[in-house]
Amino acid sequence: MTAFTDLFGIEHPIALAPMGGAAGGALAAAVSNGGGLGLLGAGSARDPAWVERELDLLTAGTTAPWGIGFQCWAAPPALVARTLERGPAAVMLAFGDPAPFLGAIRDSGARLIMMVTDVAETHRALEAGADVIVAQGTDAGGHGGSRGTIGFVPAVVDLAGPTPVLAAGGIADGRGLAAALALGASGVLLGTRFLASPEALQTPAAAKALLDGLGEDTERSSVLDIAHESGWPARWTGRALRTPFTDRWRDHEDALRADPDARRAFRAAEERGDPEAAVVWAGEGLDLISDLVPAADLVGTVAREAAFAAARLVRAFPSPDTEKHARGR
Amino acid sequence: MTAFTDLFGIEHPIALAPMGGAAGGALAAAVSNGGGLGLLGAGSARDPAWVERELDLLTAGTTAPWGIGFQCWAAPPALVARTLERGPAAVMLAFGDPAPFLGAIRDSGARLIMMVTDVAETHRALEAGADVIVAQGTDAGGHGGSRGTIGFVPAVVDLAGPTPVLAAGGIADGRGLAAALALGASGVLLGTRFLASPEALQTPAAAKALLDGLGEDTERSSVLDIAHESGWPARWTGRALRTPFTDRWRDHEDALRADPDARRAFRAAEERGDPEAAVVWAGEGLDLISDLVPAADLVGTVAREAAFAAARLVRAFPSPDTEKHARGR
Repeated sequence: MTAFTDLFGIEHPIALAPMGGAAGGALAAAVSNGGGLGLLGAGSARDPAWVERELDLLTAGTTAPWGIGFQCWAAPPALVARTLERGPAAVMLAFGDPAPFLGAIRDSGARLIMMVTDVAETHRALEAGADVIVAQGTDAGGHGGSRGTIGFVPAVVDLAGPTPVLAAGGIADGRGLAAALALGASGVLLGTRFLASPEALQTPAAAKALLDGLGEDTERSSVLDIAHESGWPARWTGRALRTPFTDRWRDHEDALRADPDARRAFRAAEERGDPEAAVVWAGEGLDLISDLVPAADLVGTVAREAAFAAARLVRAFPSPDTEKHARGR
Repeated sequence: MTAFTDLFGIEHPIALAPMGGAAGGALAAAVSNGGGLGLLGAGSARDPAWVERELDLLTAGTTAPWGIGFQCWAAPPALVARTLERGPAAVMLAFGDPAPFLGAIRDSGARLIMMVTDVAETHRALEAGADVIVAQGTDAGGHGGSRGTIGFVPAVVDLAGPTPVLAAGGIADGRGLAAALALGASGVLLGTRFLASPEALQTPAAAKALLDGLGEDTERSSVLDIAHESGWPARWTGRALRTPFTDRWRDHEDALRADPDARRAFRAAEERGDPEAAVVWAGEGLDLISDLVPAADLVGTVAREAAFAAARLVRAFPSPDTEKHARGR
């Protein structure tokens, strides 16, 4: 179907974004069982026991190809090496220097997926020998850069040559998948859409907020990273639903950095489940999400919708050229 | 071909963004002559003599349908009324309350195109009876909002029902046009891509900067509006190539507001052509632009590229469903 599905021998050009802490073993297994590529969200991997437990669920839940994603700036190489023994078909690296991980990944036979957020990162990922590049736009929920998805994806495709590219950021249905393929990508990486599934690890309140929210209720900033004292490099900011807390500190990041009491109070409120302190990472595709859908079903639905969208294009361009290329390539 | 081309009886689903001061009569005529819809950029229309002169060029340059675009917050209703006597097929309104203009536009028989940058504006445009909605993402060059194109376009399509939607922001080639149609749009509105044409009204230095720049060299902010004392409502910011001046004042907007000398010095430098003060509005699609192309040729090229991209989708989704819908709808 596409260079991406061929690479992994899967049915649909749809990967699960390895959302740290939210994309657990059940969700990753469901996406793989649906014909996509499920990627476990190890995130900063600061809790190896969590990763091991979710890997148990994942490997018990599917016999299809699956993968796991890490944040380079935070992941311990020893943990990455240990997960390779579980037999992932793919390891995805994002946000930082991949060098400490490359040897072990190559030795394991797993494919290397690298996420990029600008042109310089794209060059580095190609130099590192990535088998798949994820071009992530600022439209994405969670952490990312500043490039807009619709312009960044074809730019990365032009740089990547034969390396398959997945589009990420602001895509939440089959129209977005079809658009990604039209831009030259070989598939999509979906985060927020899969976050609104019963298998995602999150609270009922967060799930409801996703269904109620619009893309314009989200905002990309560093306020939450400062409050969390998470150590995230400042060049990648996070997109989440706006809250009274982010409204309070927007454009006053320096003041929040200088106010340990405010940071501590926020984290305490977050831990006791105060809705004003709830953090719901979410992307620009939120308008398109109005129901919780089992993740395996979602994969097939998005692919079917994309086929409809493709048919719309053929109607718009019924030229002999289209016909010839549709037949011949 | 699409609901948009049907509405105007034109060949290609491509409109020229009415870039104030840059999309003059020659550029608008060229786009219409190429089979798209050329829209003259009257902008804030503070110089009625300029508008009249460019309208002369436009009407002398084409017999195909054309239009004109205004910024609601600034355009004098009397000037809008006067341009209607020149017989535009369409008037595009953006950025503000359309009410003062609606009656005259309706009476003239021109179609009403309204540009929107968020969901609330979309509802208002539909209530105003827009014949076409332009869903403009933050990826766009020049002034706009904060929604990302790839998620905002399908959201607007879902709200607009039968009203045709054009996608705008970060689109600069046929892959972007095909993607827009896949998202449910009936065409695209291209700004930066047409700015890189010999017909656009700009300096050779600005044209070179467009060809050299990447999307990530652009930035959306209010720094330039503050420096220009242009009166732009702060809710719409402008995306332009970064310069030493925008680097200097980023995150220090309040200080620039309080510093009339700095603003005056900037405008003086801009007037005498100092490269450090040059303002080049440009969008996220800049990576895709590497040559100056005559605008009429560009229309056909983008449409042809889109047909190729459509063919790629058909290859990705060779299902009986696709075939049936490609035939039947």
